[in-house]
Amino acid sequence: MKYQLAIIGGGPAGYTAAEVAGKAGLSVVLFEKNNVGGVCLNEGCIPTKTLLYSAKVHDTALHASKYGVNVKEVSVDLGKIIARKTKVVRKLVLGIKAKLTAQHVTLVQGEAYVQDAHTIRCGEETYTCEHLMLCTGSAAFVPPIPGLDTVNYWMHREALDNKELPASLVIVGGGVIGMEFASFFHSLGTQVTVIEMMDEILGGLDKELSGLLRADYAKRGVKFLLGTQVTGIHQAGEEIEVSYVHEGQEGKVCAQKLLMSVGRRPVMKGFGLENLNLELTPRGTVKVDEFLQSSVPGVYVCGDLNGVSLLAHTAVREAEVAVHHILGEKDAMSYRAIPGVVYTNPEVASVGFTEEALKREGRAYRVVSLPAAYSGRFVAENEGVNGVCKVLVGEDEEIMGVHLLGNPASELIVQAGMMIEDRRKLSDWKKYVFPHPTVGELFREL
Amino acid sequence: MKYQLAIIGGGPAGYTAAEVAGKAGLSVVLFEKNNVGGVCLNEGCIPTKTLLYSAKVHDTALHASKYGVNVKEVSVDLGKIIARKTKVVRKLVLGIKAKLTAQHVTLVQGEAYVQDAHTIRCGEETYTCEHLMLCTGSAAFVPPIPGLDTVNYWMHREALDNKELPASLVIVGGGVIGMEFASFFHSLGTQVTVIEMMDEILGGLDKELSGLLRADYAKRGVKFLLGTQVTGIHQAGEEIEVSYVHEGQEGKVCAQKLLMSVGRRPVMKGFGLENLNLELTPRGTVKVDEFLQSSVPGVYVCGDLNGVSLLAHTAVREAEVAVHHILGEKDAMSYRAIPGVVYTNPEVASVGFTEEALKREGRAYRVVSLPAAYSGRFVAENEGVNGVCKVLVGEDEEIMGVHLLGNPASELIVQAGMMIEDRRKLSDWKKYVFPHPTVGELFREL
Repeated sequence: MKYQLAIIGGGPAGYTAAEVAGKAGLSVVLFEKNNVGGVCLNEGCIPTKTLLYSAKVHDTALHASKYGVNVKEVSVDLGKIIARKTKVVRKLVLGIKAKLTAQHVTLVQGEAYVQDAHTIRCGEETYTCEHLMLCTGSAAFVPPIPGLDTVNYWMHREALDNKELPASLVIVGGGVIGMEFASFFHSLGTQVTVIEMMDEILGGLDKELSGLLRADYAKRGVKFLLGTQVTGIHQAGEEIEVSYVHEGQEGKVCAQKLLMSVGRRPVMKGFGLENLNLELTPRGTVKVDEFLQSSVPGVYVCGDLNGVSLLAHTAVREAEVAVHHILGEKDAMSYRAIPGVVYTNPEVASVGFTEEALKREGRAYRVVSLPAAYSGRFVAENEGVNGVCKVLVGEDEEIMGVHLLGNPASELIVQAGMMIEDRRKLSDWKKYVFPHPTVGELFREL
Repeated sequence: MKYQLAIIGGGPAGYTAAEVAGKAGLSVVLFEKNNVGGVCLNEGCIPTKTLLYSAKVHDTALHASKYGVNVKEVSVDLGKIIARKTKVVRKLVLGIKAKLTAQHVTLVQGEAYVQDAHTIRCGEETYTCEHLMLCTGSAAFVPPIPGLDTVNYWMHREALDNKELPASLVIVGGGVIGMEFASFFHSLGTQVTVIEMMDEILGGLDKELSGLLRADYAKRGVKFLLGTQVTGIHQAGEEIEVSYVHEGQEGKVCAQKLLMSVGRRPVMKGFGLENLNLELTPRGTVKVDEFLQSSVPGVYVCGDLNGVSLLAHTAVREAEVAVHHILGEKDAMSYRAIPGVVYTNPEVASVGFTEEALKREGRAYRVVSLPAAYSGRFVAENEGVNGVCKVLVGEDEEIMGVHLLGNPASELIVQAGMMIEDRRKLSDWKKYVFPHPTVGELFREL
């Protein structure tokens, strides 16, 4: 069977590429060994956001009296929350399948193996293709901590399907995924401890906002151990004991459950990648150009596999650019304005440079920052909750970075990305008419 | 006392103009007879949104079980909701006062009277100014319905301060204000009837979305009488009886309370406007150019008074443009992308042309429309709730209008306005990286 485009991996990169290419009339085969939608849809972005929304409903009910609404006896049914999550995922997986079918994409369920740039094997079949797109994604990284393999720990997948609320939970890794689970379980009543090796949670995000979010969760009862290295893990009766070193001092924390969320790595093995002899970067990831082409003509690498961003929305855009390149359409990938969102409550969202990155690059900038309470809508909808809107302005008044703490940051950040992508100035932003009252008006208050 | 700029009216137009001009170093006097913030802040946008958020919290608690959260005995404390509203307004009024103080604006509490373009009287004092800005806003219109003056009816002001939930409420006027109050009172448990003279609610908004919202509220129990003319009103025992004619048939509806919300009109009397002899439009409003200048040099008219848009956010932008013009900065008012939002639950938001307007102008367009369920985030956060994202695309693929039904439409519409203001194409929109998962991604799914 011969196709114009063969795609390995049906996550956001793969399914987007398949849909766009199919719509443009290319014959497309998409190989997926599990469910289409990939980690993002099946065990990542979507299921976590479904759970987090239930947590938000729980938070809202618990604090309803602040808004003049009286509620008695708030409790959660974790089994029902998980069942709903599964239903939502199923619905969206079916939606993607329907889109692929509508674009005449051949979906092959199975493990694909790359023989060469034009030949793929899957099961008994061999497929030939003009173009090959590799979108195998990433996998959660399991750190080599002594004793970890002797206990029954959770990765995010197990945490998503757990139907009994643990009394206590240690989360190793205070990045985005760790913090989203911390937010979820804490909201539902679990005693949560977050252990982070770096001196602040949320890795590359704005340090000030990350610190504010951490302080907020600490006030609500989440324990944070920053600058802390986990040295050993073992079962201690009913609990899991995590040993650590913090500033040279040893310590221990016990909990009923342990969630490991230290990061993700591209999946580069198991599908014959080595047969392509692709050029690698010094970091060991596959080298791609602005059209997502690898060093081998006709072979594209999109999504987490190329190791550039490890975000679903980057993958989606990369896939579009790659397909446009195959089609000969003018397009190129820009990483200038990739938003990052943490779906805690409140949310944090960020796009463009952080202060830390600008300092590292030695670039001049000034900070324009406002409390979210400058927005009447924010005040109306956030009783006793703080937020921040922080914009980094470079020379010539160009907007270099935008960082938000406060709901609905996730939905607001895209317009900030638009301004940054188009190299617009702060004064340009104010010339648009923002509906009143909205939280987004903060941008024009700056 | 002599000022470079005198402003009459401290609503969104007036306080924005004062702040911007003060910041630029102009000496500014602002006259306000009531509270700064105007109708918008004191008895409009902000108080309604505060009440509507309480209603949303109530809705969320009532429907929490859909998301796996169990809640018993949900009730509202309207007194507390109203008290919180008053507190929010007070906080924001103080915020505006603080901004004005920071910019050295002289705030004069009192009724100003225009003697000529450079002379204002207020109380015993006379003020002279180089430039004059009129921002007296609008007032709710009371229609001449027989019997109306014999009953104790509500205007929006009374509805906002009412502390006892009525069992039943008739709302005359199904525009934005009418629908927001319908949403609020219905959510809290009042039996609501909306009487609208036109054949659809929400006036100039997209007819399809307005119809969907109406059908949704009708399903929840709100009664709508469309194409219905109110002919008489009188007290009937404990209730108010509203007589109407619908398709030639007479009918009656009774309710404990009656809210009149048939629209607003510019406030053109009581402050000496007639002394300026400004040129009027055929509609009888003050004629202004793209810099908000009236026919008299140095006299600017911003906000509802000029009758162009009657929206707070338009007023804000107009005020900026007018001050920029005084300062000799390059700027001009554009009405191309003024968003309109209805803060019902779900929200409706709209910017640019409607289909109805394009048809009226005989312009070619195509409709690109998606159910909101194409967004994973929407599905995760809206169990059993529908939404629509509808974009009107003109010739050359330019985006002409965007219409949304579904939360958080109010916060999403501004980016649509940015695209329309800049005359961008649909394909341009897709080149931005939208964070995943967000409801905003609908725009790139189109």
